[in-house]
Amino acid sequence: MQAPDMMLPHKDLVADWQTLMRVFIRPENEATKAILLKYMEQILFGLHDFLRKHVGVTQAISLEDLACRFTETIIRPTPEKKLEEVIADLIEEIAPWAVNVASPYFVGHMTSAIPFFMVHLKTIVAALNQNVVKLETSKVVSVVEKQVLGKLHRLIYHRQPDFYENHVQNTDTTLGAFVEDGTLANLTALWVARNRALAPKAGFDGVEAQGMQAAYRAYGIERAVVLISGMAHYSMYKSGGVLGIGNRNIIPIAVDENFRMRPEALAQAIRDLSAPEAKTKILAVVGIAGTTETGSVDPLATIADICADHGIHFHVDAAWGGPVLMSERYRHLLGGIDRADSVSIDGHKQFYMPMSCGMVYFRDPRIMDAIEYHASYINRPGSVDLGIKSLCGSREATSLILDSTFKIMGSRGLALLIEHGIDSARRFADMIARHPDFEVVSSPELNILTYRYCPRSLQRELAAADTRRRSKICARLNVLNRRLQRLQREAGKSFVSRTTLYRDRPAGDEMVVLRAVIMNPMTTLEVLAEILAEQEVIGRRLQADS
Amino acid sequence: MQAPDMMLPHKDLVADWQTLMRVFIRPENEATKAILLKYMEQILFGLHDFLRKHVGVTQAISLEDLACRFTETIIRPTPEKKLEEVIADLIEEIAPWAVNVASPYFVGHMTSAIPFFMVHLKTIVAALNQNVVKLETSKVVSVVEKQVLGKLHRLIYHRQPDFYENHVQNTDTTLGAFVEDGTLANLTALWVARNRALAPKAGFDGVEAQGMQAAYRAYGIERAVVLISGMAHYSMYKSGGVLGIGNRNIIPIAVDENFRMRPEALAQAIRDLSAPEAKTKILAVVGIAGTTETGSVDPLATIADICADHGIHFHVDAAWGGPVLMSERYRHLLGGIDRADSVSIDGHKQFYMPMSCGMVYFRDPRIMDAIEYHASYINRPGSVDLGIKSLCGSREATSLILDSTFKIMGSRGLALLIEHGIDSARRFADMIARHPDFEVVSSPELNILTYRYCPRSLQRELAAADTRRRSKICARLNVLNRRLQRLQREAGKSFVSRTTLYRDRPAGDEMVVLRAVIMNPMTTLEVLAEILAEQEVIGRRLQADS
Repeated sequence: MQAPDMMLPHKDLVADWQTLMRVFIRPENEATKAILLKYMEQILFGLHDFLRKHVGVTQAISLEDLACRFTETIIRPTPEKKLEEVIADLIEEIAPWAVNVASPYFVGHMTSAIPFFMVHLKTIVAALNQNVVKLETSKVVSVVEKQVLGKLHRLIYHRQPDFYENHVQNTDTTLGAFVEDGTLANLTALWVARNRALAPKAGFDGVEAQGMQAAYRAYGIERAVVLISGMAHYSMYKSGGVLGIGNRNIIPIAVDENFRMRPEALAQAIRDLSAPEAKTKILAVVGIAGTTETGSVDPLATIADICADHGIHFHVDAAWGGPVLMSERYRHLLGGIDRADSVSIDGHKQFYMPMSCGMVYFRDPRIMDAIEYHASYINRPGSVDLGIKSLCGSREATSLILDSTFKIMGSRGLALLIEHGIDSARRFADMIARHPDFEVVSSPELNILTYRYCPRSLQRELAAADTRRRSKICARLNVLNRRLQRLQREAGKSFVSRTTLYRDRPAGDEMVVLRAVIMNPMTTLEVLAEILAEQEVIGRRLQADS
Repeated sequence: MQAPDMMLPHKDLVADWQTLMRVFIRPENEATKAILLKYMEQILFGLHDFLRKHVGVTQAISLEDLACRFTETIIRPTPEKKLEEVIADLIEEIAPWAVNVASPYFVGHMTSAIPFFMVHLKTIVAALNQNVVKLETSKVVSVVEKQVLGKLHRLIYHRQPDFYENHVQNTDTTLGAFVEDGTLANLTALWVARNRALAPKAGFDGVEAQGMQAAYRAYGIERAVVLISGMAHYSMYKSGGVLGIGNRNIIPIAVDENFRMRPEALAQAIRDLSAPEAKTKILAVVGIAGTTETGSVDPLATIADICADHGIHFHVDAAWGGPVLMSERYRHLLGGIDRADSVSIDGHKQFYMPMSCGMVYFRDPRIMDAIEYHASYINRPGSVDLGIKSLCGSREATSLILDSTFKIMGSRGLALLIEHGIDSARRFADMIARHPDFEVVSSPELNILTYRYCPRSLQRELAAADTRRRSKICARLNVLNRRLQRLQREAGKSFVSRTTLYRDRPAGDEMVVLRAVIMNPMTTLEVLAEILAEQEVIGRRLQADS
């Protein structure tokens, strides 16, 4: 390709003003436009070619080898490459060593193929380059964002039409917020819950102003806690650390055989912590709609009852499971979510958006006042600036992508994807259950399941073993599954992740499991059967070697 | 345009499985590819046409009128629009009401035109859709990110080459982190500083585990504070609130006549707070390299001396000014930044990246251990997973954009942009100083300046006035400038922002000022002269009306 006139000169690359201006000024002539479009073609289809060629997860190269190639820490004064070379490098040198998350054989994490148009929508957002922290750098986009927040709020809470008429564009109230990801969504929810529980009162200006120490004194407590499922995402502990609560005060509640919070254990914990001598304030209870590791859904309605009885903030982490509300067939699985005080949902998970788009919703449109901040130059009281009630400042207009997705796919389109995932996970679980050398560990409530390789010989041994012997066999199974997962990943054809689960059992009885997340619509049952067959082969080989 | 075979049907849009699969499957035939490319052309050049047509900031429409159009809160079950219609809507219905931040006449905020190739780079990142939280969804991108962190670390700290050899790809250490924006960069820095100041010790497992109350007890303190410039960004107060310190314990230090922290005031504050009876721990001192409102740079070297004397964590908020380090001519303005324990820099500001890319760097590559988190399914100890030491979880591979920018522009290219901004701001300040009806309020240390309309008649009155009369005139000037700024914004041709400054003066002497941020290379002196001339006309009219 010839060097276009708007690009840096072909031979001796220099940084001069004229060259610089060319990359800022919009192209006026057809030739330059054609070049820019050509680059876009390379990106759209060059990357495709890569993605199509490598069905596996990544090419075989060790991390050490890769790391050796990226050790240059000096920024060169003069340009090193032309745009077309940089694009070519990204396609030819970087992409092949990236992870092909779009492969139907990539069923290990919550990242999958995304619809084609997402790339177009992201490009629009980049080209507009609005900053949603304030109206003066976003205008209509802030208004669109408030509308999208209204749509999701309605999906979750389905309050009366006049509620939405009052609040959708109300500049004083907020139905939710866009954040970077699920972690920041959960952090925002707990931040609000903390400030609400330790709110200003006579002689005390609130925890946000005076800090935790003063809050404890004002409320006569010595401890503040958050109660969560034992399967909660690590962002909950991190949030506890960040917020000054202490991650040790984020208390996991025991789960049942399918890794759902046990409501009676929650009720007991609340009773214990509510005793006057405990001097403890429960800031929030967190239920999960789709745990990261097993996709389990906590009994939200029952937890809502318990929280209502005790006046405790009820947060639901639906980062994964939230979009299930799109499906008429399966939304009942999230029954009770509309009684939560706050709900996290990730757009880059089951709304199939590109990285990354977290969101948090609040039933009470005034509750976010507890985290309101102003500045002299923006975010002044009474303005529409969305940054007034937001953890971060500058941010991208991802709401445009989500809004467009709803228009292009309809809730029914998204529902079909969700239903495919859940149905496939159930069928895959059946397939595993029927297999003599595997066992399902957590059956899929949504579209995640865990299982392990447990060859029939060891199954028989386990059945006959005493406790001590059982522990030994389990330890061996853990080693076996850890190796199996690694070997399959390294083979580069398929990717299933692994995690370690702990049931309500004697300590030490940890279980290493394989974890499948089925969200890619191209992941058919045949693909899943292939993945399992590959695991069986690896497992047998490992058994034979041991 | 005809409906392509991969898109939803033209007439009755339905959500069915076959249609869905078409938006996931990569196009194989040339016709479909051509359609996708056509859409990209619309985005690249349709938006251009808009951006070129509207030199002003936005078209004239009231916020209320806009808000009325976006009140639909129901997500329709069936698709509402085809992709091409959605793209057309975004270009024709949304973009005209967005803010044309790329206009040379938009000099009000820290958002400007970005080089053309940024849109291409963002598109690549979206198409690859890697999630940098963990190696298993990013592989080479995590390695690239570590390298970019090394490059910026070296720019700031210029430590010995073997330091970078040791750490650039070291899986145990971290030179910094990408975050969403400057607010989260500052929050991360203060989070680390807090945890370091209230670290584990005999009988205490650290503030992260046990919380603020336990930390205060363990350290025998009743208060923890952070000392900042009186001109610090509001994110500092927000961080204090989030971290459980209390935003009231984020203590502003007096600034000098050009809004730089007064070191003697800092030293005095430290002495006062260090008295045993104060029972106070100073968690950090924050200096600013480019305040948001005036672009002032605190005396970093002097502050570093003071912090070193007292063993206090020194954070520099260089979200705005950091890239000045690229310029050999002007990097001395940030002298002392290499002695900071942590530094924030924003990529979406003066590295001209699209929204949004914050970063935080730490001199000590082990200091981020203080905020380390693990999980069973990812981020296991010893892994390369970048999410181990990061505020957020899932996030976009923005490091690829920054790395590519360095390659395409060279540090010299970025330096030219920085130098243009600083030089233009100085010349604009001269132009204002020479104008009989305006006065410079803060002269530009970097490329931001503040000034106000102060007609010569009022200048004369001010000179002769007693204190009481002065206050009255100042109040009138404030009203005048507030109106002037609003009228200019509403006219839609240019945009200068406004803020309110408070000097070390008797209370109530607040000053409303116009604020110009000059970063767009297309903002010439002629453009600035036009903007000022327009303000003069508006100012005269307001004076005549009053």
